[in-house]
Amino acid sequence: MNHYYYECFSCKSKFSKQQIENDLHYLCPKCGKAEKNKPLVGVLKIIYNYNSVSEEIKKSDFLNLTPGEFWLYPQLWPLEYSLNNHSVSIKGITEQQLNSIKTISSPLIKTKYHGNDLLVFDDTRNPTLSFKDRASGLVALKAIQLRVKEISAASTGNAGSSLAGICARLGIKSHIFVPEKIPLGKRIQIQSFGANLYLVKGDYDQAFDLCLEISQAKGWYNRNTAYNPLTIEGKKSAAYDMFISLNGSLPDFIFVPVGDGVIISGIYKGLWELKQLGWINEFPKLIAVQASGSNALVRYIKQKKFVYKTTHTIADSIHAGAPRNLFMAADAVTKTNGFAVSVTDFEIIDAQKKSAGEFGLLIEPAAAASFAGYLKLLKTEIVSPKSRSLLMFTGNGLKDQQSLATWNDEPKSYSQDEWKRILKVK
Amino acid sequence: MNHYYYECFSCKSKFSKQQIENDLHYLCPKCGKAEKNKPLVGVLKIIYNYNSVSEEIKKSDFLNLTPGEFWLYPQLWPLEYSLNNHSVSIKGITEQQLNSIKTISSPLIKTKYHGNDLLVFDDTRNPTLSFKDRASGLVALKAIQLRVKEISAASTGNAGSSLAGICARLGIKSHIFVPEKIPLGKRIQIQSFGANLYLVKGDYDQAFDLCLEISQAKGWYNRNTAYNPLTIEGKKSAAYDMFISLNGSLPDFIFVPVGDGVIISGIYKGLWELKQLGWINEFPKLIAVQASGSNALVRYIKQKKFVYKTTHTIADSIHAGAPRNLFMAADAVTKTNGFAVSVTDFEIIDAQKKSAGEFGLLIEPAAAASFAGYLKLLKTEIVSPKSRSLLMFTGNGLKDQQSLATWNDEPKSYSQDEWKRILKVK
Repeated sequence: MNHYYYECFSCKSKFSKQQIENDLHYLCPKCGKAEKNKPLVGVLKIIYNYNSVSEEIKKSDFLNLTPGEFWLYPQLWPLEYSLNNHSVSIKGITEQQLNSIKTISSPLIKTKYHGNDLLVFDDTRNPTLSFKDRASGLVALKAIQLRVKEISAASTGNAGSSLAGICARLGIKSHIFVPEKIPLGKRIQIQSFGANLYLVKGDYDQAFDLCLEISQAKGWYNRNTAYNPLTIEGKKSAAYDMFISLNGSLPDFIFVPVGDGVIISGIYKGLWELKQLGWINEFPKLIAVQASGSNALVRYIKQKKFVYKTTHTIADSIHAGAPRNLFMAADAVTKTNGFAVSVTDFEIIDAQKKSAGEFGLLIEPAAAASFAGYLKLLKTEIVSPKSRSLLMFTGNGLKDQQSLATWNDEPKSYSQDEWKRILKVK
Repeated sequence: MNHYYYECFSCKSKFSKQQIENDLHYLCPKCGKAEKNKPLVGVLKIIYNYNSVSEEIKKSDFLNLTPGEFWLYPQLWPLEYSLNNHSVSIKGITEQQLNSIKTISSPLIKTKYHGNDLLVFDDTRNPTLSFKDRASGLVALKAIQLRVKEISAASTGNAGSSLAGICARLGIKSHIFVPEKIPLGKRIQIQSFGANLYLVKGDYDQAFDLCLEISQAKGWYNRNTAYNPLTIEGKKSAAYDMFISLNGSLPDFIFVPVGDGVIISGIYKGLWELKQLGWINEFPKLIAVQASGSNALVRYIKQKKFVYKTTHTIADSIHAGAPRNLFMAADAVTKTNGFAVSVTDFEIIDAQKKSAGEFGLLIEPAAAASFAGYLKLLKTEIVSPKSRSLLMFTGNGLKDQQSLATWNDEPKSYSQDEWKRILKVK
C-alpha cells in the first residue's frame, strides 16, 4: 500500500502515486496548465495518512531530533523506504548519499532587535548557502528512485546552484536554465558544480518556459519550482526544523520572502502537517514579503485577480512576473490570517545593511526582504515588538556581491607609514 | 582558584592567569618577541587541570554533545564561568550573545573518493563561512570579559571577515588590517559587517606588523593569529567537534592547510587535550599542506632552519612568508608523526575543481590545498586509499570568486529559439 497520494490544489481531484509517477506527471492530469507568463494551474499536493503517522511517531521523539534529521521519519516523505528495528533505509539511496543530504540544515538563532526578542532562521548556511537545498535534496533523491539520470531546473540562481551542488554530491547530471543577468556568485556555483548551464536571453519567466519545453523533449526530470510538487514538499522541512529548534513553541509571525511563492507554500504545508498530526493547535501568521517592483502576490490578494507585469528589483531571487505558485501562496497567507506586503529596493538594502551590522548575518537582497517587511510592519499596529516574530533568511550575501557593492565602495590602500600618520600613531 | 594557567612554548616558563591577563600580555613576558618577517617567539599555550576536568566530565557525556555545544564545558575554556545545577553561565556574556556564538559549528561528512572512504570536515559552513570563526568566537568573548571595547586583527581575509562578523553579532567594534589585494568577497564581508577596514600596501606580513603597532598604541584587543594565544585555543574546538562527530573514533590522517600554522596548532592542542583526559590513546597524523610558493614550514621541517622568502600563490589564505606560529606548527607535525607537503597552484585548482564536481563542496583555494595534499600523498605509499583520512576544508569558494573564474569562463547567452536550435529541440 502507498503511504501517500496526490491531490490537485485547483480541482481537488485525488490521484494515486502510480497515476502520477508512472508516467511522470508534474501537474494535475485533469486540469493542469503551464502557460507562458501565468501562474500554474493544477499544482499537486502530497498527502500522507496522518492518523497512522501520528500513531507511529511520538511528538516528543520528533522534538528530540536535531534539525536536518527529519529524514529519519520517511513516513513523511514521498520516497520508497523500509524500516527495520528503528533503522531507516531509503530505497536505492546509499549511506554516502544520505550522509550528504542530511547536512541540509541551518541554525535558528534567538536574537534581539532594539531590545526585543527576534528569531532568525539563518537558512543561508545550507550546503549551497540557500534555502533551496531543501527542495533540491528531496527532488534529487526522488530522481534516483525514479531511475532518471538527468535533472533540470529553471532558476533565478539559487535553485539552480542548489540543484547543481546537490546533484554533484549524489553523482547525477544537472541542466540549469537561468536569465542572462544572474549574479556572478550563483553563476559560478552552477558552473563549478559541473552542471550544464544555459544562459537565456530575457528574464526568469523566459528561462522557466524554455526549461519546461527542453526537459520534456529530452526526458530530464524537471525540478522547476511549483511545477514539480516535490519542490513544495522538500521545503516543508523548514517548518519541521523550526518546530524542532523551538522545541514545539512556534512564533506568532513568520516573515517569508516571496517570488514564485513556493517557499511560503512549503512552510505552510509543513505547518499544516504538524496540525494534522495534532502537534500544534494554531498556525503562526505567514507574512509574504515581496519587492515592490515584483509584487504579483500582493496585488493578487488585494484585487483577487492576477495581472502579469514585467518586474524590476535588486532582489533577483524574488523576481517573478508570474509567480508559478501564486494560488497556493495566497492560500498560505489567508489560511494563517497572514498578510502580503511590498518593500522597496531601498528598504531591502537598508535591511541587508542592518542585518550585517547588527546580527552579523550577511544575506542577499531577497533574504533581506523578510527583515524589511518586519521593519515595515513594526511601524504599524499589525506586529508589535513584543510579538514573537521569525525572519526567514533564504540566501547568503556572498551569492550576490554586486548588491553589497552598492553600499560598500572600494577603499583606498595606504602604506604602513601612511596609515600611522592617518591614525595619528607616531 | 584559576582553572587554567599559561605556559610559554619557547622557554617553558609558566604564568598565572593574572600575570598574563591583568596587563594584557600576549607573548611570553620573559622571552616573547614579535619581529618583522619572523615567526613569533614565546607563543603562549593555555593549560587546564586535566585531572579535575576528567573527574567532572564523562567521556560519554562529551560524546553526546552535538558539534558546537562545546561551550557547555567551560572548564576547558579560558573564560570566567559559573556552574549551577548543570546550567552553565559564562560571566558577562548574555544568553543572546552565547546563542549567536553557539552556531559556530559545521558538518563532518562521511563520503567516498574513487570508492574509498574519505572524511571531509566542511568548516566552510561556519557563520562567516570559514574555520576562523572558531578563534574569533573565543577571542570576542574574552574581550567582553576583559572589558575591552574594540578588537583588531591582521588577516589575509578570513580571520578579518570572521572577526568582523562575530563582533557584529556581539556588539563590539572591530578594526581589520588586510593586504591591498584581498579577494573581493572577503573585503565586502568585512565592510558589510561594519568593521573599520585598513587596506595595507604590501602583503599579509606587512599588515600583521602594522596591526600590532597600531593596536598597542590604541589599546585595542589584538586577535592577530598566534600572537593572541586564544586564537590557538579557539581553534582546538575543531578537534573536539571531530571527536564528537566521529563518536570518538578519530581518523589516521588529518590534512590541514597551513599558512601561519595556527589551525594545525589548534587542532593539535585539542587532540593533545583529549589525550590528557584519557579519551584517546593515539594521535591521528597531522599532515600540513602548503602552497609551493609559500612553504616556509615544509622548508623549516626539512632544513631545521627558518628562511624568510616572499610568497606567491593563488591560495591567499595560506600566504605567509613568515608563519607566525611556525615552531608550534612544526611541533604538531612531528609529535603526531605527520608530514609537511607542498602542492602547486595547479594542483590546488585541480583539487578545487574535483571537490566541487565530486563532493558538491565549493571551497576556496587554501581549503583545496588539503585535498591536493591528500591526492599527492595517495600517489606515494605514505597514505593508502584504505587509511582513514580527513580533509579539513577551511573556507568557502564564494569568498574568492576570482579563483573560480580561472576555470569557469563567462558563457554566452542565447534566446529561447537559439537554445532550441542548439539543443536540437524543435
